[in-house]
Amino acid sequence: MKTRQPKVELYYWPGIQGRGEFVRLLLEEAGANYVDVARESKNGLATMMRFLEGKERGALPFAPPFVRVGKLIVSQTAHVVAFLAPRFGLVPRDQGLQAEACQIQLTLADFVGEVHDTHHPIAGSLYYEDQKAAAKRRAREFVKERMPKYLGWLEKVLLRNRKSGGRWLVGADRTYVDLSAFQVIAGLHYAFPNAMAPLEPKIPLVRALYDRVAARPRIAAYLASKRRQPFNQMGIFRHYRELDAPARRRARKR
Amino acid sequence: MKTRQPKVELYYWPGIQGRGEFVRLLLEEAGANYVDVARESKNGLATMMRFLEGKERGALPFAPPFVRVGKLIVSQTAHVVAFLAPRFGLVPRDQGLQAEACQIQLTLADFVGEVHDTHHPIAGSLYYEDQKAAAKRRAREFVKERMPKYLGWLEKVLLRNRKSGGRWLVGADRTYVDLSAFQVIAGLHYAFPNAMAPLEPKIPLVRALYDRVAARPRIAAYLASKRRQPFNQMGIFRHYRELDAPARRRARKR
Repeated sequence: MKTRQPKVELYYWPGIQGRGEFVRLLLEEAGANYVDVARESKNGLATMMRFLEGKERGALPFAPPFVRVGKLIVSQTAHVVAFLAPRFGLVPRDQGLQAEACQIQLTLADFVGEVHDTHHPIAGSLYYEDQKAAAKRRAREFVKERMPKYLGWLEKVLLRNRKSGGRWLVGADRTYVDLSAFQVIAGLHYAFPNAMAPLEPKIPLVRALYDRVAARPRIAAYLASKRRQPFNQMGIFRHYRELDAPARRRARKR
Repeated sequence: MKTRQPKVELYYWPGIQGRGEFVRLLLEEAGANYVDVARESKNGLATMMRFLEGKERGALPFAPPFVRVGKLIVSQTAHVVAFLAPRFGLVPRDQGLQAEACQIQLTLADFVGEVHDTHHPIAGSLYYEDQKAAAKRRAREFVKERMPKYLGWLEKVLLRNRKSGGRWLVGADRTYVDLSAFQVIAGLHYAFPNAMAPLEPKIPLVRALYDRVAARPRIAAYLASKRRQPFNQMGIFRHYRELDAPARRRARKR
């Protein structure tokens, strides 16, 4: 069934993937008509600030990302994608499956929040260097306890989803949640390569999901384009060697 | 309009208000037919664990609270209340207002997450005493920067909501979001009385909303009942004097 797709204005900080990337991946997979306002429009960043300062009409966002769709201003990443998905055929119409998708997305959001706090455990307003000691402690607990717990949970969700034979997280086909899971895994590869290496064999379904999303034609085209900004040390997923697990020594060749 | 209300099973850790309290307040205001399973049912806690261990059917929750409504298992606090609200007339049917409610609720959830991390900035699995130094730093930034920012944002949301004359957060009448805002303010009074005192005069609409919710007959009855567990040092909102702002000296009587 063909639904008429809305035009979307995305508002997010330029220069980083950040939480905006979860929205971008959805819009790219949908082939949506969208503008990444702060990056692409003249005075785009100033327009975004007007919304945050309450100078525009509609719901007041606490922080980016937010989108404008018609007259509606929709904020909070997990909510933005849950709101857009049915409008772009990226979630089934079934209410139970939509509920399932939403709670997985919110769990991914919690996971991402914990990733952020590995490098900013004290305050987002302070430099990393000023909270490095606490960051090391938090990151150690994160890679030891939380990362395996979240990833193991995702693996179980895939395993339980018989409708897709473990290929997708919700229902029989790909949804917005799969795109977000891809982004989380991509970020973990970047930020915690050493910690990820020994976990990968334990999460074969998650790994296959990552490859499956990366290979989707529109996603592959997006990832190869300049629209996809690289990971960097300003975003949520940052690579600080001292926060990752130590590298494993390989067996020496004889 | 009278809709047929579903029966709800709530699953949450016994002994604390925690995130379960946001769900309880909704169910109490609705006069819902619900069971707080882990507190009230024989082997309730064991039943909850079976869900978390993946031994029951339906969506796999990452953590409590979750609810069972018919065959659906719904988890993630903000999603649980957004899911229940239309079934109990606690949010308007209008899609734009539902979206607005959802993003406010998610912002409250972020706020609550930051409150939690004031006493557990390193890891939830470690004792408070083992992360006290980091907790003090995080709490200092929280009461200085984040608490006024979130509360000021709530005040602005009320101020902008002309449909209710600033009485409610969304639309013309009380919604589930107002109940959650009440709980956040109650928690802040408990955890950070000194930091709250000088902020209160700056957020008159928030303060009035708090009083208005507390005075609703079903909420008042609930708060006076044994079903309302007291705040304590095991929940999300904890009172540690060293994490609150210092007490202000009163002008001495002459």
